[in-house]
This record gives sequence, C-alpha cells and structure tokens, in this order.
Amino acid sequence: MKAEKISELTTNRLSIYLRCLLELRSEGQSTVSSAALAKRFHLNSAQIRKDLAYFGEFGIRGVGYYVDTLIDNLRTILGLDHDHNVCIIGSGRLGTALADYNGFRKSNFSVKALFDADAKKIGKKVGGAEIFDIKNFQSVVKRNNIDIAVIAVPADSAERVLELVAKAGIKAVMNFAPVPLKASDHLKVRTVDLTTCLESLSFFLAGTESINGSGLKPKRNTRRKR
Amino acid sequence: MKAEKISELTTNRLSIYLRCLLELRSEGQSTVSSAALAKRFHLNSAQIRKDLAYFGEFGIRGVGYYVDTLIDNLRTILGLDHDHNVCIIGSGRLGTALADYNGFRKSNFSVKALFDADAKKIGKKVGGAEIFDIKNFQSVVKRNNIDIAVIAVPADSAERVLELVAKAGIKAVMNFAPVPLKASDHLKVRTVDLTTCLESLSFFLAGTESINGSGLKPKRNTRRKR
Repeated sequence: MKAEKISELTTNRLSIYLRCLLELRSEGQSTVSSAALAKRFHLNSAQIRKDLAYFGEFGIRGVGYYVDTLIDNLRTILGLDHDHNVCIIGSGRLGTALADYNGFRKSNFSVKALFDADAKKIGKKVGGAEIFDIKNFQSVVKRNNIDIAVIAVPADSAERVLELVAKAGIKAVMNFAPVPLKASDHLKVRTVDLTTCLESLSFFLAGTESINGSGLKPKRNTRRKR
Repeated sequence: MKAEKISELTTNRLSIYLRCLLELRSEGQSTVSSAALAKRFHLNSAQIRKDLAYFGEFGIRGVGYYVDTLIDNLRTILGLDHDHNVCIIGSGRLGTALADYNGFRKSNFSVKALFDADAKKIGKKVGGAEIFDIKNFQSVVKRNNIDIAVIAVPADSAERVLELVAKAGIKAVMNFAPVPLKASDHLKVRTVDLTTCLESLSFFLAGTESINGSGLKPKRNTRRKR
C-alpha cells in the first residue's frame, strides 16, 4: 500500500481525531467509544470506525478505544513520532505570522529558518528563527535538516520557489501562494488557498438566488465533449 | 437545488478556474478549450467540463469557452458579482497578517473591521481597517454590513466567538482556530487548519515505513461495530 493513495480528507480526519483524543487525555479520560468521540466533537462515528479500521484493529468491543494507545498509533501513522523541521520562504506579513503561529509550536513542527530576497530583512529573527538570504537556500536547508517548506511568496514567484525546493530535496510543501503548483510523485504540495476559501463562502451566501436569478441552472448528467 | 449540496471541492475548483481564466484574459486570450485550460494550469479537462456543465452549457463545440463570458458566469455562480465585507476576530499576528493579505484585496472581499479584547490594540489600524472592542461586535457588524467573519483566536475561545458571530446574523465563517466548529444550515464554517495540513504532509513523508515498521498494516473492508 502506498501512503499517497490515502486521500487528504482521510489524513485530515486522522489529524482531527488525534487532536480530540489529546483533549480527552488532558481531561483524564482513558477510554472512549467512537459514538462518544463523535458526539463530543461533532464528528461521524461510522466514519471514525472506518478510518481507523483501515490501519488496524484499535478498538475493543464493549470498551471502545484506549485513548493512550490510539494517540500513540495515530502519531505513528501520521509520522508524528519524530520532529519535522520547517522553513518558510517569503518573510512578509504572512510568512512571519506563520513563523509565530502557535499551532506549529504545540506540535512536532518547528520553524528553523525563514527566507527572503530583501536585504533589509535578512539576519532578523522571527519567533526564534532567522531570516536567511534565499541565495543560501540549499546550504541552510541541509544544515538544518529541513524536510517541509512553506511557500508564502506572491503568486508570480511561487513556481520558481517550488523548483528551488525540489532541487534541495525537500519532499513536502505547504503553499500559501494563490496558484496551483504542480506536485510530483516525490513532492507533495498542499495549497492553502485563502481566496478560494472565501469564494466558496461567497458561493454559500449567494445560495440559490444568484444561480436562478441569472438563469444559470445547475444540471446533472450533462457531459458533452468540448 | 440547494447551493449547499454542491461540495466544497467543486466550489474550490470553480474558484481556481476563475483565477486561471482571469490570467488568460490578462494575456489577451479570448477563447480556450477545456483541454488547453487543463494543460496550461495542471488541471483535469474532464473534470472542468463536468464541473461547468453542472451549471449550464457554457462551451461551444469547436471553439471551447469564451473567456469573458465564462468569467462572468463563474463570478455570478460564486456570488462575486457584488462585494463582501469581512471582519477578522482576533488581532494577533495571524489576524493582522490576514487583514493585510494581498489575496483578499485583489478579490471582492474587503476587510472592514478587526476585533480584539485587548484594550492596548483597540483603535489601532491594520491595512486600512480599525481594531474594535469585541464588546461592540454587534453594532460594528451592522454598521459595516459585514457578511463574512474570519475567526483568528486561540482554540479555547473559538466556540464562544462563533456564538457571537451567529447572533450577529453572519452566515459565513472562515475559521483559523485549530478546532472543529459546529456549523448549521444557516451558518457555513470553513476551517483552515494549518496543523492538520502539516500533519497530512508528515503522513506523506512517513510513507509506508512508519506504518509497516510499527506493524500498523492498513486493511480494507474492516467494519466492526465498536
């Protein structure tokens, strides 16, 4: 089985289950049923059982899941049994906000370096990490064992930055530039597209009105070659 | 047809098509086939045809799509034929970075207000928008016709903030707090979960090794009641 074959939606859910279990553990709970987990965190209990069963038999009939054991297993599955070193390319407002983002710190991800091309920024520190000259990308990445790159540059530089990242042997990228970037078998790109996210909310707000009002009727089973 | 029935993945793609078409238009292109669009932007041509056909017959055999017309139609479908007023709750690094985020500005979304509970921040301006006291949330929202709220507060305040947002009659929320928030039929929540995104990259990096190494073998068709 190839890890890549598992959908992002599944890994997203595993990550959420892990967070929920950590919360239960912090409250002193040692076992939980899929039903109780679902109820507490607004999840789907059948989905929980299915997602977890895919990786093994973690539940015990009549007991549910042992919180500690399931946390350990999820951490192993998600590759969180060791730390990841992250770099952020682009040290604008977003890049520096991400360097300081609390969520990263609480997890196994530590930002080891930021990069920029602006000489005025180089050498400054954000959230404990230094801003380096993008010219020294390869050497800084090697020296810090960086395995995840965050792209926080404008859209028109993103593709060039991705090439640099691939050349440095980094295999996982979180992309904030609002462009689709081409991944490969050896390089995984997750794009966090804030504009797309807002536009999908706008779609929800538009509801049926704009669609019907404009004569844009949704249709099904219409597949014509163009 | 209910707009909500269309998956987020579909609306995400419509939003990406729109962006790609805008780029083509800026280059002076007036028509494009689904195949050419797919090739240029690393998309899937069959998916493009299917997604668009759902809303009507936009393509013309032998020509493809008229770029201008398709842009107009996509903007209408996505509710982008009018502006949206956004507020950001939480004026930490992330909240202020979002207020300044270029992507919002280029689109129909303008940040009209930020909110915080910290007296030292109130009255300051970020990217042209003022930071208001969260106590005045309802009145500021009404006065500025705000229809989208961005939640950029720590996890433990997120649920309380969501209640406030719902009470103010806002129907669309972009959530950056790393907790699942409960949406309703009248309130759409899109969570941008950066930790989950990183953990999914970590899963990719872990590949098959950690799974096999730990004896956590993925299985299919295992659905036992727990």
